[in-house]
Amino acid sequence: MTEASLHGVIPYLPTPVTPGGDIDCAALSRLVEHLIGQGVHGFAPLGSTGEFAYLDAAQKETVVRTVVEAVDGRVPVIAGVASTTTRDAVAQAQRWRALGADGILAILEAYFPLTDAGVEAYFTAIADATDAPVTLYTNPNFQRSDLSLPVIERLSHHPNIHYIKDASTNTGRLLSILNRTEGRLGVFAASAHITTAVMLIGGLGWMAGPSCVAPRQSVQLYELCKAGKWDDAMALQRRLWSLNESFARFNLAAAIKAGLRLQGFDCGDPLPPQRSLDATEIDQLKDALTKIGAM
Amino acid sequence: MTEASLHGVIPYLPTPVTPGGDIDCAALSRLVEHLIGQGVHGFAPLGSTGEFAYLDAAQKETVVRTVVEAVDGRVPVIAGVASTTTRDAVAQAQRWRALGADGILAILEAYFPLTDAGVEAYFTAIADATDAPVTLYTNPNFQRSDLSLPVIERLSHHPNIHYIKDASTNTGRLLSILNRTEGRLGVFAASAHITTAVMLIGGLGWMAGPSCVAPRQSVQLYELCKAGKWDDAMALQRRLWSLNESFARFNLAAAIKAGLRLQGFDCGDPLPPQRSLDATEIDQLKDALTKIGAM
Amino acid sequence: MTEASLHGVIPYLPTPVTPGGDIDCAALSRLVEHLIGQGVHGFAPLGSTGEFAYLDAAQKETVVRTVVEAVDGRVPVIAGVASTTTRDAVAQAQRWRALGADGILAILEAYFPLTDAGVEAYFTAIADATDAPVTLYTNPNFQRSDLSLPVIERLSHHPNIHYIKDASTNTGRLLSILNRTEGRLGVFAASAHITTAVMLIGGLGWMAGPSCVAPRQSVQLYELCKAGKWDDAMALQRRLWSLNESFARFNLAAAIKAGLRLQGFDCGDPLPPQRSLDATEIDQLKDALTKIGAM
Amino acid sequence: MTEASLHGVIPYLPTPVTPGGDIDCAALSRLVEHLIGQGVHGFAPLGSTGEFAYLDAAQKETVVRTVVEAVDGRVPVIAGVASTTTRDAVAQAQRWRALGADGILAILEAYFPLTDAGVEAYFTAIADATDAPVTLYTNPNFQRSDLSLPVIERLSHHPNIHYIKDASTNTGRLLSILNRTEGRLGVFAASAHITTAVMLIGGLGWMAGPSCVAPRQSVQLYELCKAGKWDDAMALQRRLWSLNESFARFNLAAAIKAGLRLQGFDCGDPLPPQRSLDATEIDQLKDALTKIGAM
Repeated sequence: MTEASLHGVIPYLPTPVTPGGDIDCAALSRLVEHLIGQGVHGFAPLGSTGEFAYLDAAQKETVVRTVVEAVDGRVPVIAGVASTTTRDAVAQAQRWRALGADGILAILEAYFPLTDAGVEAYFTAIADATDAPVTLYTNPNFQRSDLSLPVIERLSHHPNIHYIKDASTNTGRLLSILNRTEGRLGVFAASAHITTAVMLIGGLGWMAGPSCVAPRQSVQLYELCKAGKWDDAMALQRRLWSLNESFARFNLAAAIKAGLRLQGFDCGDPLPPQRSLDATEIDQLKDALTKIGAM
Repeated sequence: MTEASLHGVIPYLPTPVTPGGDIDCAALSRLVEHLIGQGVHGFAPLGSTGEFAYLDAAQKETVVRTVVEAVDGRVPVIAGVASTTTRDAVAQAQRWRALGADGILAILEAYFPLTDAGVEAYFTAIADATDAPVTLYTNPNFQRSDLSLPVIERLSHHPNIHYIKDASTNTGRLLSILNRTEGRLGVFAASAHITTAVMLIGGLGWMAGPSCVAPRQSVQLYELCKAGKWDDAMALQRRLWSLNESFARFNLAAAIKAGLRLQGFDCGDPLPPQRSLDATEIDQLKDALTKIGAM
Repeated sequence: MTEASLHGVIPYLPTPVTPGGDIDCAALSRLVEHLIGQGVHGFAPLGSTGEFAYLDAAQKETVVRTVVEAVDGRVPVIAGVASTTTRDAVAQAQRWRALGADGILAILEAYFPLTDAGVEAYFTAIADATDAPVTLYTNPNFQRSDLSLPVIERLSHHPNIHYIKDASTNTGRLLSILNRTEGRLGVFAASAHITTAVMLIGGLGWMAGPSCVAPRQSVQLYELCKAGKWDDAMALQRRLWSLNESFARFNLAAAIKAGLRLQGFDCGDPLPPQRSLDATEIDQLKDALTKIGAM
Repeated sequence: MTEASLHGVIPYLPTPVTPGGDIDCAALSRLVEHLIGQGVHGFAPLGSTGEFAYLDAAQKETVVRTVVEAVDGRVPVIAGVASTTTRDAVAQAQRWRALGADGILAILEAYFPLTDAGVEAYFTAIADATDAPVTLYTNPNFQRSDLSLPVIERLSHHPNIHYIKDASTNTGRLLSILNRTEGRLGVFAASAHITTAVMLIGGLGWMAGPSCVAPRQSVQLYELCKAGKWDDAMALQRRLWSLNESFARFNLAAAIKAGLRLQGFDCGDPLPPQRSLDATEIDQLKDALTKIGAM
């Protein structure tokens, strides 16, 4: 995989679990196979949607191993590394690479606030520790830290840091990142952004949970954008947007798991004390999926 | 003016003041004339950029009167109505209309939190009190209230409410508004959004302070978007974005006034205790204006 | 009035209004007379509870004039000055003093964020413009600005700035203020603090809305604290606290006005679009007042 | 240990680490011995100060085992249980009890927001899983969840939940908790509260990091409060407060570790990417410690 090769629709995979709370490897493999069949361009296990914050070290390893084996080299696997400590993050990055991950999605968890220098040191240490391309991931809504523009600019000079995935709702920030990093950093959208708008400003694609339940439509949208058919893309985007709205309203993992169950891919429930969607919420989600032709 | 007629580049006018703090009507008229000459499609006095929050009733009236007279019917004037009380807002709306304003930009100030019902009642009362088309304005960063999607949806059914200007940074929210109001509400961007992206999703234009210092470039960008030349629009947008970044970093009124002074349109300083840009900040702004060909 | 003279229970007066929205001077005078009869030590018209943010200049003047006349020198009147601009704040301070106010409660409203230097300049200008003692007022919940500890320390050296009223919930901050200003600044609590605790750390009393509906109990609590009967004070404080909880839960002006109506002092409703308490909320408030013997 | 027995000064122990990032058991034991000698009434390992958010399962177990062994039953050990999942929290609670912990300090970590029902279920599951008394711990500044008053009230009826430690700065909230739980829940302060004020309203003591570097002074303050010598307590409290201010300003773990190093108890540095205090900050801390007689 060359550093420029990451692009397109890269679903944030949920982490299927059994009723007892163990990783359901069979369900995960089956989901991967299904999504490859729909044309997705890669996978990102252990993102927010993948409940990385709810899994222990052994469970995370099982997830990466299972996805790498199921994908079997057909598309790149970008595995999430997330920790509060540099030492643990470096260990994860090395382990995921050893298991066959093609890239690293680097996430910083924080408890006490960090200085910019601390944030920069954390991501630099991860990038130093692996030969796989690193995607920076920032989600100011759920993580107690953020990547400032000056830190992103400095990190973009690292030879192993090639991409950024921004999960704020601030689309203008992506343009600021693109302008500041002048081609050194490829930008991916999240489900809070209008992906067509991000493609218009020069984005490479999107890493997002909703693509798991609308993979075909997502790939179609990506192809319209790539072809510069912006009006057609917007017509499709506008229909798909209600799905993004559902995911913004509900717990992300609960919504993806509920949606997949409706489509015949049972991935269990979000890990307690998170709760599953209730009957009314499932109906709303079913309605949204039906309207976009995903049921 | 028909209800569908509002569109394009509508600068948020600053409020020029003398060193003593009185409205500088001559400077305001001269600025209006200059901007009409550059092709802008309307004016919005008494927005955030216009320091509405720093003016008393008599000063506000002077601003509206001066702008209406200077424009003399060549483009629409959308005057800002902002208050904490319904009674005062209604009085402003009626007075601005009597002075010749073509439309009302309705802003809710709040001190104690309001329920959705209170927010809805406020905007409904303004729309009931005028025959001019009303633009809803929401800026969650500076106002202690926000318009929720259900309130916007309900307000969109009012026969006098035709537009919304959203000054959050959340571009996806604009698509949610468009989807929910199904053609009843036209959407305008603010300077925190990528305007090309807002045009792509179906926006009518933008109401923004930075257009005062880059009117020609703004009109050019608008025309590229209207012509569907999205790639050309983005190339221009990308260059212009550093101006938006400057305005996000500085006090908005201070930045516009500093920029206009650099261009030969002295509008005085922001009203104390706000401070003017310092020498270093003025240099940064000058640099940004030079790069986009606005010096 | 000497600078050390302000102390005790100083109710934040509500602003009584007629159904049409005009100031109800008769109701205001009657309330003042009632509260003096209950032993309060001063009055603070035009605070948050007094809906200063919802009144125009003429209404504010009517309030100050009415309170000064009704009090007739029996206790000090500390009138609220609140604005976004230095010019208007200075004019208010001078006008209230000319009308007979004994002291100024200085409040900074903000729309765009201010630097510490701007905040300091605003309060200094007010203190320079009057010979009446100035009380700084900070309420980070509702005002879009705050007084940092370094700014408070610098302002405490001004010969006219003698007191501070802090409406955060952070009682420890009051001790930091006392330690830093070393006797130059007297501290008053607000209804979000446990007043007995503030008295224990060296506070002078409290300026608060709830004292309007429980004046006798408030004075009793103050006297227990002054006598160093801390255990008795806490026993009373504990019973009174449910009233503070009610005011934290409801709109402050709505709660005070509802409580006073229940006690036979009709002050009208909060100004729209604020809403009055509904029947259930009034019952809760009635219950709280009954429990503390204030019905 | 009876349910009423927890009280007094209970230091939040830091977690000493070697330069390589392993637990420094010898330093931890030595610190425990020192603090017992100074008269503290218990220990709380694996709180915020103990960097629980930066330790893996094995490290946490080492900490609990080491503290239990060093204390050897002389005072109670309240071990922190913190997780995002119910399953892991229950396992920790059972393990710490098996290792000899006398009580559990229950902390909820969150990534996605939780409903009140989810929060309640988490704490209930922990309390169901152990026969040791449970202390609820809430720190809205750093944890992405909070315990609402209704949830606290419901949890207070659980036969195993006896205490709460609140690390907000809102002292009034503690009085609300005491009033609502009517003797079922004992309240402990944190370093953001004025501990004398919390004792006055009926608190049992405090669980706090700063007590590690000022144990003698903390015990003296506790005894003055217990004896009802409120004026003497406040005189001491006022001097000690600058220490609390230091800890609010700095990273908590970094400040405790720097202070202990100055006192001859080297516990290493906070775990990267957290940073240690710099020379200027250490001087400020040294100054604060000197002033209170703790150097």
